[in-house]
Amino acid sequence: MSDSIGKFLTLTTFGESHGEALGGVISGYPAGIAVDEDFIRSEMMRRRPGSTALGTKRAEDDEVHILSGVFNGVSTGTAIGFVIYNNTQRSSDYSAIEHIYRPGHADFTYDAKYGIRDYRGGGRSSGRETCCRVFGGALAKLLLAREGISVNAGVIETAGIKAINYEWDPPFKGPLYAPDCDNMDEMIQAVENAKRAGDSVGGIIECRITGMIPGLGEPVFDKLDATLSHAIMSIGAVKGIEFGAGFAAARLRGSENNDAMRMENGKPVFITNNAGGILGGISNGNDIIFRVAVKPTPSISSEQLSVTDTGENTTVSVHGRHDPVILPRAVPVIEAMAALVIADHLLAARAYGRR
Amino acid sequence: MSDSIGKFLTLTTFGESHGEALGGVISGYPAGIAVDEDFIRSEMMRRRPGSTALGTKRAEDDEVHILSGVFNGVSTGTAIGFVIYNNTQRSSDYSAIEHIYRPGHADFTYDAKYGIRDYRGGGRSSGRETCCRVFGGALAKLLLAREGISVNAGVIETAGIKAINYEWDPPFKGPLYAPDCDNMDEMIQAVENAKRAGDSVGGIIECRITGMIPGLGEPVFDKLDATLSHAIMSIGAVKGIEFGAGFAAARLRGSENNDAMRMENGKPVFITNNAGGILGGISNGNDIIFRVAVKPTPSISSEQLSVTDTGENTTVSVHGRHDPVILPRAVPVIEAMAALVIADHLLAARAYGRR
Amino acid sequence: MSDSIGKFLTLTTFGESHGEALGGVISGYPAGIAVDEDFIRSEMMRRRPGSTALGTKRAEDDEVHILSGVFNGVSTGTAIGFVIYNNTQRSSDYSAIEHIYRPGHADFTYDAKYGIRDYRGGGRSSGRETCCRVFGGALAKLLLAREGISVNAGVIETAGIKAINYEWDPPFKGPLYAPDCDNMDEMIQAVENAKRAGDSVGGIIECRITGMIPGLGEPVFDKLDATLSHAIMSIGAVKGIEFGAGFAAARLRGSENNDAMRMENGKPVFITNNAGGILGGISNGNDIIFRVAVKPTPSISSEQLSVTDTGENTTVSVHGRHDPVILPRAVPVIEAMAALVIADHLLAARAYGRR
Amino acid sequence: MSDSIGKFLTLTTFGESHGEALGGVISGYPAGIAVDEDFIRSEMMRRRPGSTALGTKRAEDDEVHILSGVFNGVSTGTAIGFVIYNNTQRSSDYSAIEHIYRPGHADFTYDAKYGIRDYRGGGRSSGRETCCRVFGGALAKLLLAREGISVNAGVIETAGIKAINYEWDPPFKGPLYAPDCDNMDEMIQAVENAKRAGDSVGGIIECRITGMIPGLGEPVFDKLDATLSHAIMSIGAVKGIEFGAGFAAARLRGSENNDAMRMENGKPVFITNNAGGILGGISNGNDIIFRVAVKPTPSISSEQLSVTDTGENTTVSVHGRHDPVILPRAVPVIEAMAALVIADHLLAARAYGRR
Repeated sequence: MSDSIGKFLTLTTFGESHGEALGGVISGYPAGIAVDEDFIRSEMMRRRPGSTALGTKRAEDDEVHILSGVFNGVSTGTAIGFVIYNNTQRSSDYSAIEHIYRPGHADFTYDAKYGIRDYRGGGRSSGRETCCRVFGGALAKLLLAREGISVNAGVIETAGIKAINYEWDPPFKGPLYAPDCDNMDEMIQAVENAKRAGDSVGGIIECRITGMIPGLGEPVFDKLDATLSHAIMSIGAVKGIEFGAGFAAARLRGSENNDAMRMENGKPVFITNNAGGILGGISNGNDIIFRVAVKPTPSISSEQLSVTDTGENTTVSVHGRHDPVILPRAVPVIEAMAALVIADHLLAARAYGRR
Repeated sequence: MSDSIGKFLTLTTFGESHGEALGGVISGYPAGIAVDEDFIRSEMMRRRPGSTALGTKRAEDDEVHILSGVFNGVSTGTAIGFVIYNNTQRSSDYSAIEHIYRPGHADFTYDAKYGIRDYRGGGRSSGRETCCRVFGGALAKLLLAREGISVNAGVIETAGIKAINYEWDPPFKGPLYAPDCDNMDEMIQAVENAKRAGDSVGGIIECRITGMIPGLGEPVFDKLDATLSHAIMSIGAVKGIEFGAGFAAARLRGSENNDAMRMENGKPVFITNNAGGILGGISNGNDIIFRVAVKPTPSISSEQLSVTDTGENTTVSVHGRHDPVILPRAVPVIEAMAALVIADHLLAARAYGRR
Repeated sequence: MSDSIGKFLTLTTFGESHGEALGGVISGYPAGIAVDEDFIRSEMMRRRPGSTALGTKRAEDDEVHILSGVFNGVSTGTAIGFVIYNNTQRSSDYSAIEHIYRPGHADFTYDAKYGIRDYRGGGRSSGRETCCRVFGGALAKLLLAREGISVNAGVIETAGIKAINYEWDPPFKGPLYAPDCDNMDEMIQAVENAKRAGDSVGGIIECRITGMIPGLGEPVFDKLDATLSHAIMSIGAVKGIEFGAGFAAARLRGSENNDAMRMENGKPVFITNNAGGILGGISNGNDIIFRVAVKPTPSISSEQLSVTDTGENTTVSVHGRHDPVILPRAVPVIEAMAALVIADHLLAARAYGRR
Repeated sequence: MSDSIGKFLTLTTFGESHGEALGGVISGYPAGIAVDEDFIRSEMMRRRPGSTALGTKRAEDDEVHILSGVFNGVSTGTAIGFVIYNNTQRSSDYSAIEHIYRPGHADFTYDAKYGIRDYRGGGRSSGRETCCRVFGGALAKLLLAREGISVNAGVIETAGIKAINYEWDPPFKGPLYAPDCDNMDEMIQAVENAKRAGDSVGGIIECRITGMIPGLGEPVFDKLDATLSHAIMSIGAVKGIEFGAGFAAARLRGSENNDAMRMENGKPVFITNNAGGILGGISNGNDIIFRVAVKPTPSISSEQLSVTDTGENTTVSVHGRHDPVILPRAVPVIEAMAALVIADHLLAARAYGRR
């Protein structure tokens, strides 16, 4: 079951980085929704290798083939099967590391778990699997758009440099997929510096979900923040997540952190949004806001200490077409996972009667 | 399904803070395990109201009644049903807030979701439901102990004051359930100050899982860190989680953040643990380390702005038996949720063949 | 997970025949439904031991204690916890069979599976667990009643004697819970004969679901008939199920078995109902009709050959308070399981948009 | 979730009869199993159109493309993605019935459910989806073979003619996939007669699972017979299922139906197998035996009464390449579903500790 996520709207995926193809099945997608292939293609383009100037030069077209569940351009309500072929993978790139555990990668843990490992580019553990997430997210966004809900993410920090005076005007473009800010050049320069040093950097991505409906999320175990965290933390390079004031809330007093309420134009509103749009695991109608810590790309060309799968010390330099920063390509993946979770809760709310 | 967590070892719960009882069902607990009732009682005692000097003076005994699944002190492999009665709840305490949405609570969102709300003490959204989690966690700990796995958490920051020079020597005691540190008095004093001001504070809890087996966790969506995040973020007051170097990893370079490997005594080891014991969502044998941001208790006696459920501005002061800091009582809850997740993955590993 | 059934409306149960109590949790029950306790009590009465003249003389009151999820008589949308205490069980009755595998019972298989067994009255495998099903079914019926859907079952054959010229006028009463028929006395007499001989009989129960909405059921794996079969076949003594023409359909030609359609009063109708109200796993608006084969009660006082758990041949006569026919008590259980399944699909249909 | 079946070993499928392709994902398949492609191909061949002399003349090659989860011929433990292309479908065949509900098909119910329908060959409701089941079943059989468990089915009745004096010597061949019997010619002739009359017939298939391990199956809701029934009843044309003595058990007395036990060669054995190998939902080590009622193919060339989707009376003759009897092609599908269920329970038993 580890290949599925979502209860009412379920994404199931398969595929390794250097297998023949990746793909999957989307179940529970309502009938009668126009499946906008241009929009899907544009979402896929944002994530694909080579999508930004800072990234790898690999050119994948990442074309999605929808194999079922759409008839005359409209969803039929039945399973949507899809496949994305691996056209340009060169498995020979990886023969040098067939028996070496790359630091920061899942090579060692897959061997420990399965006793067998597809070493070509990380196999199932490769970030390449996120192309299936972006496709699922694109469908979820089409569903959410009908309710006026939007999901947007952007890079607000990289290489330790926080975006200064940024304005939230998504969708974000440029090499970093960051909101306009005073020090964009400095942020880009920091990535370039790491790249030149054969090294990599990480950073922080913020995600905001606007147009939210109050009442999404379930009590106790499937709270909106719990299920969002599950979905976001399942993305390979993510090491932390926080909602609203987040870790800073741990330093506030209750009187500072509680979001007071007032009536405004006849409707109850929250004066602040320290909660990040979620109270008791259920949306309160405010924007949902969360931030995600992304680690530096583990594949670097600098020499690192490691061991072989036969128990010998060695060193390894990971060459090939790797991103010095994974952040911009993580932006659409984070949006996709958030959109899938919100859409899942939207269907739940319909089932249980308030939507 | 929001009342269940876990795939192979499943905890399902019910209960409101001021209903007759809370309780639930544990499914998938293996047969033949001695159910140590003294241990269970001691775990329940750590979480109950009044467990520490800093907390509320409410004295609940929180006695668990096991109703099935245990025969002659040993688990039978079948469903373990349990009930915890609400003996000392005084619902009249809450009549004053029947029609007011308390800031920082789920009052507004439950009304928005369900159109009906058990206003007594927050009903299902109350932290009281965590007593069921601690019971489930106690059973999970008994299962993990047989594999040599331990789960321990402690408070490492409160009211903005970080524990200085702390030593990790669990289980933690004292009013804060914090590891021994140079500035314990200062931390306690900060809580007392907030309490005197009719206010509350939050903080940060660290959790370490020791004796880990490599190979636990599933690829893609049910990664170990993803499922741990789901479980931990489902605890009411939690606003963020990070693994290993966490948000700080976002500021490191790849060469700094990657954990190098060496052979030691004929076994591969990681020289550092920035990964927090998880690579590609699968345990690498190192301690699993994560930190959790806990917001300040939303119930404070200071006056706050709010609205009524009929749309009028008002103010509210939440009186009653509330904790000025929820941290120490969150410690056993975090341990419980972590233990349940690890036990679930342990059973998965057995099913799929490496354990 | 074997203790739960249903995806969107989920019943989770616990409890052994001679433990302290049985009970469970109902998740996903919509908010705002009046929980009619008199109706629930009447449903429980239909199933309880001693409910009919043909059955055991055990008098259980089978009172359900609702512990959560209902506030001021109305469902709140949150988990409904419930407990049914075992008041009159006499465990000493069972000491004689502690080490003997009773033929037709699960004694041997539970030992084979778990290596430990609560031998008192069959433990978890006892038919006593069905009291939890009836409670869940009563809640489901209250939900279905709002859509005009009714579920009724009745005994149409026992001891090899088919009810002749029966009229479907539920709910059914009398010692057999059978519809009025020409040979009711003969049917009852056959049960009495078996009882006098220290033996038992089985029979066939028909269930009809009226007021059905077209469009319930999901394609492929969760067809309406597949999920109904799962639910019904999970009842202990059930050995077969068939829908509409059922096994007889296997002997018809396509031209005979296909239900032709005609317009009637401006609406499409099916002229016959060989399909039993389901086409392609989805309800067609006709009554859903299925029949269930119930085996004779395995507990009989006649001497039977068996073995002990230490591998010795022996004989066993099962004395105690046993029903010579389980049929009438199975009637409300079958209705309950059917109601739970239909309610689950009703919520699914709401989620996905046609209801 | 209706596109998935199984808890530990999960098959998720997609695809319509006249879309581009069908396929799916298998999750939870253990690592290290040799994936015998010849065996898979032979299983697929048994189900494909034109596989027997009695069937349609359509020639599909039904070649399965495995896209992931297998590396160097061995399963890696990760998701197995697969696709089967629709090469020879001619959608134009179906334009005549675009607006007519074919009797015995799901045309009407899909329209009622979704408000949109892929009318080409039944879309998702077509029996063509069973090719994905056979692939999943082939993998399950490879897993079960390592435990010595075999699953075999055969036709034991068609057109109302029961096989006389049949011998159980699988795998079964010939146009009917029936065991050798005295009246095979008569059975085949009956099918031919129906075909000549532009009509169709159904029948009964028996399935036996040999080499069973005692202890598979879960208490209460996921009993072995309940989950097998779910899986088998989800096959399109199936209208009933019975285990062991089945409906005949309803006519036996307890003393006749209970399977007595004796010690034999130091092991407990059951003298008879009325239970069909399952007691209390758990395997007892005997062969699991069940029988399945299959309705006559609904597509017949004889004229039938029906209505259009705009509410007008009409008649319809379904021409095209249809089987006069679906039985032989249902045989491998029934085996596949049974194998998937048994494999799922086998993994569960490993998780919970007895295997």
